[in-house]
Amino acid sequence: MKLLRVGPPGEERPAVLDDAGRPRDLRGVLGQGVDFDGDFFASGRIERVAIALRAGELPPLDEDAAPGTTEGRVGAPIARPGKVVCVGLNYRDHAEETGASIPGEPIIFMKAPNTVVGPEDEVLIPRGSVKTDWEVELGVVIGRTARYLGTHEEALACVAGYAVSNDVSEREFQLERGGQWDKGKSCETFNPLGPWLVTADEVPDPQSLGLRLWVNGEARQDGSTANMIFGVAEIVRYLSQFMVLEPGDLINTGTPAGVALGMPGQPYLVKGDVVELEIDGLGRQRQTVGQA
Amino acid sequence: MKLLRVGPPGEERPAVLDDAGRPRDLRGVLGQGVDFDGDFFASGRIERVAIALRAGELPPLDEDAAPGTTEGRVGAPIARPGKVVCVGLNYRDHAEETGASIPGEPIIFMKAPNTVVGPEDEVLIPRGSVKTDWEVELGVVIGRTARYLGTHEEALACVAGYAVSNDVSEREFQLERGGQWDKGKSCETFNPLGPWLVTADEVPDPQSLGLRLWVNGEARQDGSTANMIFGVAEIVRYLSQFMVLEPGDLINTGTPAGVALGMPGQPYLVKGDVVELEIDGLGRQRQTVGQA
Repeated sequence: MKLLRVGPPGEERPAVLDDAGRPRDLRGVLGQGVDFDGDFFASGRIERVAIALRAGELPPLDEDAAPGTTEGRVGAPIARPGKVVCVGLNYRDHAEETGASIPGEPIIFMKAPNTVVGPEDEVLIPRGSVKTDWEVELGVVIGRTARYLGTHEEALACVAGYAVSNDVSEREFQLERGGQWDKGKSCETFNPLGPWLVTADEVPDPQSLGLRLWVNGEARQDGSTANMIFGVAEIVRYLSQFMVLEPGDLINTGTPAGVALGMPGQPYLVKGDVVELEIDGLGRQRQTVGQA
Repeated sequence: MKLLRVGPPGEERPAVLDDAGRPRDLRGVLGQGVDFDGDFFASGRIERVAIALRAGELPPLDEDAAPGTTEGRVGAPIARPGKVVCVGLNYRDHAEETGASIPGEPIIFMKAPNTVVGPEDEVLIPRGSVKTDWEVELGVVIGRTARYLGTHEEALACVAGYAVSNDVSEREFQLERGGQWDKGKSCETFNPLGPWLVTADEVPDPQSLGLRLWVNGEARQDGSTANMIFGVAEIVRYLSQFMVLEPGDLINTGTPAGVALGMPGQPYLVKGDVVELEIDGLGRQRQTVGQA
């Protein structure tokens, strides 16, 4: 299934796409106030959505919403996550372009959870920034508590689904202002997510997805999750040795080569740029760059 | 005021201490289901608590709760924060004991928000850990959204209050497993907080508080917030340039000298150790160390 959230920021309503790609309203089957959050994933209500969708019981969402209004905006496909955990330098070609050595085990950092925004929301260049960069990534949403997992099979059983994620990064803040990366990863609007959370059953092999990114129509990143150094199952298993992953948490699994940091002339984002990104089967994002 | 949360994990009820130091029940004045979370701090309901306390309108909390039961347990004084942001190497003597240079601006990292536990809850040594360490810190709880603040006065106006915080750290995970510190900061139970959130009006000078820590009764840390390199006002102002701080967020402001990492023989925690810590006016914690 493709789960999504539609509506103005802070007022998104949970929905699911039908076979024709139209959003169907879940408030009737889930109840008012239910959102795609930790409680939702932990409760098994995702199965209730699947049953109602198959039975054709779901009404269309806002057939009469005026196009171009925030009513029809697509938000992030999950509510505010409990944490956003990221894997650094997880594609060999990206590690090489940044001059870093290939990591022997996953490098872990975090983004502030309030960086998560919708897939077409404006991305803001922080005040004082001259090195705001893009990173297309496979986002993994946790569906079940993960603590000291022993196997890759257990790890994949903890995955609710996948989404396109833009791990926007300020390279000076990240690399030149003390050395701990979180400082350049947590700025306002720095994690566009979506348009959909595609449930894990529809992604039989998360290690065979093409992922691409363009800036102003010019191709910048064109990779495949087949080239991850540590795959999704290993990332989830590994992380569970260091922290308790909970339903609704988001993991960004690293980016392939093609970021501004690694390009000749380092063409960082400027106000007015348009960033587009997509992953096979997970949909497409488009952000206009603004100034905070 | 001294705000606290009493009850079994996940079922804590908000309370406030009266002049005699007894917890008073806030459910009547705040309503069922209200907790000390972002909504609470953002809504100004803290003022309603102050009025009710002054008026003597609040009933005692569970006068008949059996001692030693989880009913009488003190939890963290705030609900799960939206984020936990930490300042590294913020006391000169601690930077020196770890062999690090004095930072020219705050070093920022994060802990997973689900590390926050009660002040007397067990602290678990992670599986595979041999370097679990302690850090007494002044915890700052945000009461008002902070975004690109201009002055220290604005920054202090965003502080709801202060609490004792133990920034438990696994030094091998933090320093020897890739270099990004979050990996050694986010393990289960790694952030005992409390017993109270002391509101900012009762802490006229957050830069004049003694803070101390003992392991099995032996003094390990004995410092003063007067020796912070960056004070609370500067930390909040600085952080707001890199991320949006929100009501209910927690900031750990760094630890003075005396951690195991900096001691001869590096006496890291082992199962059965007892850690006690306190800050002037903010109360005292006591944790027994267990094994995950």
